[in-house]
Amino acid sequence: MKNSEKLPKGRFITVEGSEGVGKTTNIEFIKHWLAENRIEFIVTREPGGTPLAEQLRELLLQPREESVDETAELLMVFAARAQHLNQVILPALRQGKWVLCDRFTDATYAYQGAGRSMNQDTIAQLENLVQNGLRPDAVILLDVSVEIGLQRARGRGELDRFEREDVAFFERVRAGYLARAANHSGYHVVDAGQPLDRVQQQLNLVLATLKADLT
Amino acid sequence: MKNSEKLPKGRFITVEGSEGVGKTTNIEFIKHWLAENRIEFIVTREPGGTPLAEQLRELLLQPREESVDETAELLMVFAARAQHLNQVILPALRQGKWVLCDRFTDATYAYQGAGRSMNQDTIAQLENLVQNGLRPDAVILLDVSVEIGLQRARGRGELDRFEREDVAFFERVRAGYLARAANHSGYHVVDAGQPLDRVQQQLNLVLATLKADLT
Ligand SMILES: Nc1ncnc2c1ncn2[C@@H]1O[C@H](COP(=O)(O)OP(=O)(O)OP(=O)(O)O)[C@@H](O)[C@H]1O
Ligand SMILES: Nc1ncnc2c1ncn2[C@@H]1O[C@H](COP(=O)(O)OP(=O)(O)OP(=O)(O)O)[C@@H](O)[C@H]1O
Ligand SMILES: [Mg+2]
Ligand SMILES: [Mg+2]
Repeated sequence: MKNSEKLPKGRFITVEGSEGVGKTTNIEFIKHWLAENRIEFIVTREPGGTPLAEQLRELLLQPREESVDETAELLMVFAARAQHLNQVILPALRQGKWVLCDRFTDATYAYQGAGRSMNQDTIAQLENLVQNGLRPDAVILLDVSVEIGLQRARGRGELDRFEREDVAFFERVRAGYLARAANHSGYHVVDAGQPLDRVQQQLNLVLATLKADLT
Repeated sequence: MKNSEKLPKGRFITVEGSEGVGKTTNIEFIKHWLAENRIEFIVTREPGGTPLAEQLRELLLQPREESVDETAELLMVFAARAQHLNQVILPALRQGKWVLCDRFTDATYAYQGAGRSMNQDTIAQLENLVQNGLRPDAVILLDVSVEIGLQRARGRGELDRFEREDVAFFERVRAGYLARAANHSGYHVVDAGQPLDRVQQQLNLVLATLKADLT
């Protein structure tokens, strides 16, 4: 956890990627790795992670008649994040726990920024307002073609408001994620088109590095 | 309506003031005045005014176990405002209608700014992001002592999350409103401690001025 405060050894790890790349599946794998390594951790997700933030998630995801203003959507995402960060993530990191989070601000750059073509500077402004200096220590970006991702994700019945977007939207989201990974440090891109055991071999390497950095 | 776009003759009027000052009561009076003067108008309120924005209002007002992060609250208020503005207020103004709104951004400066001591520059930044150049043409600020206001408001059963604040909070809110009225143009402060018929005599004068400005 990079921050202006002097902080203990908790690590903040986010798992990112477009629909159906395998975030939730691989978080289960990472949980087992953390438990085996006797690391104290919490697992959480965005948008969500507190009762209020989960209510905001519900408002964000539910399909609706009304067209949703892009700025309204962006502000709801960061409202949920402010609540989640202050109630859950920061307290855990301060206790030295690792925080494993299913999506975080990279998803905002990818979905609202690249996907909806919202101004990146506006997103950066809100990121600073809500997070101050806090950024993930590591972002695990699962990457697979939009076609395969959507095929995996859409096996699950009722589509939420985002899942109803078209293929071009998800192509922009994927490209947005990859561009961030290429231009910033701390990103670990994993080819999520491989069989799960291969994906998880790679995750083992990433996790070993993160653990080694601490000692 | 002050804005960079060239816009038609709709006027944007907001009614402000702390709890129980008589906003909703006097909006009824203003509605009658507008109808008598054959002015096309809509009446709306904040937070709220669209299905999504009303859901956000519900999340903002419901008392909850979880303590609500101030930044999360502020972002929810502006998320609801972005939706309301783009779906309801701007379309009405563009059609030349008057928009009469029960609370708007002055309430954010008063409640989140003065009441919760949040940074005014942060509020101004979000105001610009969400509203661009749009500001009310007239703000009718109903002002009465906190004691009388709370007495009037608290006759209504279950208190919402804001109504549960202490007297010192509402003193800051009232002072915040008065400071804005003193330092900006377009504010009409009405002594809401007077009997309703006196309050409404004053409103008649304000409304006549606004109408005259148009011709
Ligand atoms: N590497 C893989 N190979 C084959 N199938 C996979 C792989 N990874 C995940 N899956 C399957 O794809 C489906 C979607 O996975 P999962 O729910 O983990 O994705 P997700 O990224 O969390 O999706 P969402 O974005 O909707 O939350 C699941 O059925 C999962 O078993
Ligand atoms: N000038 C007045 N004199 C006496 N009673 C008044 C006056 N104005 C309003 N009231 C009464 O005070 C109560 C609160 O008024 P109202 O609901 O209009 O306030 P409000 O500002 O909309 O409150 P809230 O902030 O809770 O929305 C009502 O019962 C109303 O009849
Ligand atoms: Mg998932
Ligand atoms: Mg009212």
